Amino acid sequence: MRPAPEEVRTVVCAGTGVIGGGWVAYFLSRGFRVVGWDPGSGAEDRLRHLVDAAWPALTELGLADGADRANLVYEPDLPAACAQADFVQESAPEDLDLKRRLLADIDAATPEGVVISSSTSGYAMTDMQTECTHPGRTVVGHPFNPPYLIPLVEVVGGKLTDPDTVAWTSEFFRLAGKSVIAMDHEVPGFIANRLQEALWREALHMVAAGEATVEQIDLSITDGPGLRWPVHGPMLTFHLAGGQGGMAHMLDHFGPSLLSPWTRLEAAELTPELRDAVVAGCDREAGDRTIDDLVAERDRGVIAVLRALGRA
Amino acid sequence: MRPAPEEVRTVVCAGTGVIGGGWVAYFLSRGFRVVGWDPGSGAEDRLRHLVDAAWPALTELGLADGADRANLVYEPDLPAACAQADFVQESAPEDLDLKRRLLADIDAATPEGVVISSSTSGYAMTDMQTECTHPGRTVVGHPFNPPYLIPLVEVVGGKLTDPDTVAWTSEFFRLAGKSVIAMDHEVPGFIANRLQEALWREALHMVAAGEATVEQIDLSITDGPGLRWPVHGPMLTFHLAGGQGGMAHMLDHFGPSLLSPWTRLEAAELTPELRDAVVAGCDREAGDRTIDDLVAERDRGVIAVLRALGRA
Repeated sequence: MRPAPEEVRTVVCAGTGVIGGGWVAYFLSRGFRVVGWDPGSGAEDRLRHLVDAAWPALTELGLADGADRANLVYEPDLPAACAQADFVQESAPEDLDLKRRLLADIDAATPEGVVISSSTSGYAMTDMQTECTHPGRTVVGHPFNPPYLIPLVEVVGGKLTDPDTVAWTSEFFRLAGKSVIAMDHEVPGFIANRLQEALWREALHMVAAGEATVEQIDLSITDGPGLRWPVHGPMLTFHLAGGQGGMAHMLDHFGPSLLSPWTRLEAAELTPELRDAVVAGCDREAGDRTIDDLVAERDRGVIAVLRALGRA
Repeated sequence: MRPAPEEVRTVVCAGTGVIGGGWVAYFLSRGFRVVGWDPGSGAEDRLRHLVDAAWPALTELGLADGADRANLVYEPDLPAACAQADFVQESAPEDLDLKRRLLADIDAATPEGVVISSSTSGYAMTDMQTECTHPGRTVVGHPFNPPYLIPLVEVVGGKLTDPDTVAWTSEFFRLAGKSVIAMDHEVPGFIANRLQEALWREALHMVAAGEATVEQIDLSITDGPGLRWPVHGPMLTFHLAGGQGGMAHMLDHFGPSLLSPWTRLEAAELTPELRDAVVAGCDREAGDRTIDDLVAERDRGVIAVLRALGRA
């Protein structure tokens, strides 16, 4: 039976490379018992090395009651690992056939109802759950590297995933201290990777065309917009580019720059509907914070980041 | 005559809205005498309000010797302002005709040889310097909002700009405490805005298609890759996605994801030349830092950012 999200005690991490091992370290730090499985030779040593390397950072961020590296069990047999699961996080290499077969094997060995989540960077669960007998409990839970430090997890189901599974998984990750985006659309690359990938592709085009060097690209982000993005995302950032008029002023007056050749990505057509949706979204997100409040918040945040990184 | 970069005493800021006013505050904090000019009604009051609002942040970051808000002079007559300049920073609205005329007016009134820099977000100086009698001294010096906090300035000349002007301006901004990218290619949007714009356009497409909400887009960045970008730019970030093999392993093994529909921006073709240029760039940028060093640096940085923002 599926436990309640707050009743999960044992997490099975199937695949313990950089991402899966990062999950192991994170779940241990939150006080879970973790069973690690990976078919690679020397996997257990590499996993314990990774957990040891991450532990000082996790300790600095604060361990949950009962958190202990001794709660890690390495289990070389997949069915024996899955049999113990209250929750499974799969982090195998990005190979669709491999993930299809592995999820089917996990499904066959995991107690009824227990949720099986995949770290896939971009495959749709619809395409991965095809061989499972119980696809309703399979879901994407996409983390960011390193999973033990970056809070974001994107949760999205496939066509055969039960809506309850998405809700359960979102709640489980929230209780485990993660920042969760529960998506109701299955989009390749989810959200953050799509945004990151657009930036990355433009960067590769610029290098290919001799327009910028690798070092210039990195410096342009770390010393430019990258300093604002931990504080406000791209939408609230541009909300402030509109002065007191906010996003409405920004779109109405600077909308034409969408037609400028500022990237190789053609812009969305700025229909009245899109304009209104973006403005309304910024207003919702800002809540009762005025433009002045948000400017002060951004400035405090950027200063804090600069000082934290020894750059002020 | 053009002063040496270290001899600049008086900076003229032509246009003192959000960006120009931010420049005024920044130059005051670095100990310069600043002459502000703006044709808008009530511009002086708005400028002094903006400088007062920014001053606590600038004080916290550390004022230069002699920095004083009393060093701000507001001058309603453009030629009278320009006559005093050791350096001019133009921050008029983004309107090409307006900027062409204004730069010509500034050029006519500014002492011989003194550099005239434009804050334009994306126009090429080639297109803006057309009406100037002395276009060789005109250059783009593109800041990020707010210019008093974000270090980045992108410096690039137009077809008629003297190479010396680009070198002088880069040195001046560096002496003034800025982080400078001197570009040798004139590309619309320069570097940071192209990368930022690609991300923004993908975000707008996602809202238009109902794939993500404004709030989800912002959260996906602030709680995801946005936490890494003040520490490492997009290239070094993916250098670490390749494990010990770095960017070479990343491109050789995950290159096929460039063909995935993870954004609406078509990818650059990963030719051997592009692959080698990106790998070599990452190796140059990493210098003598090993992958382990960079991972530790990233982890320390992300933790510092999380703690600085009260999120750890």
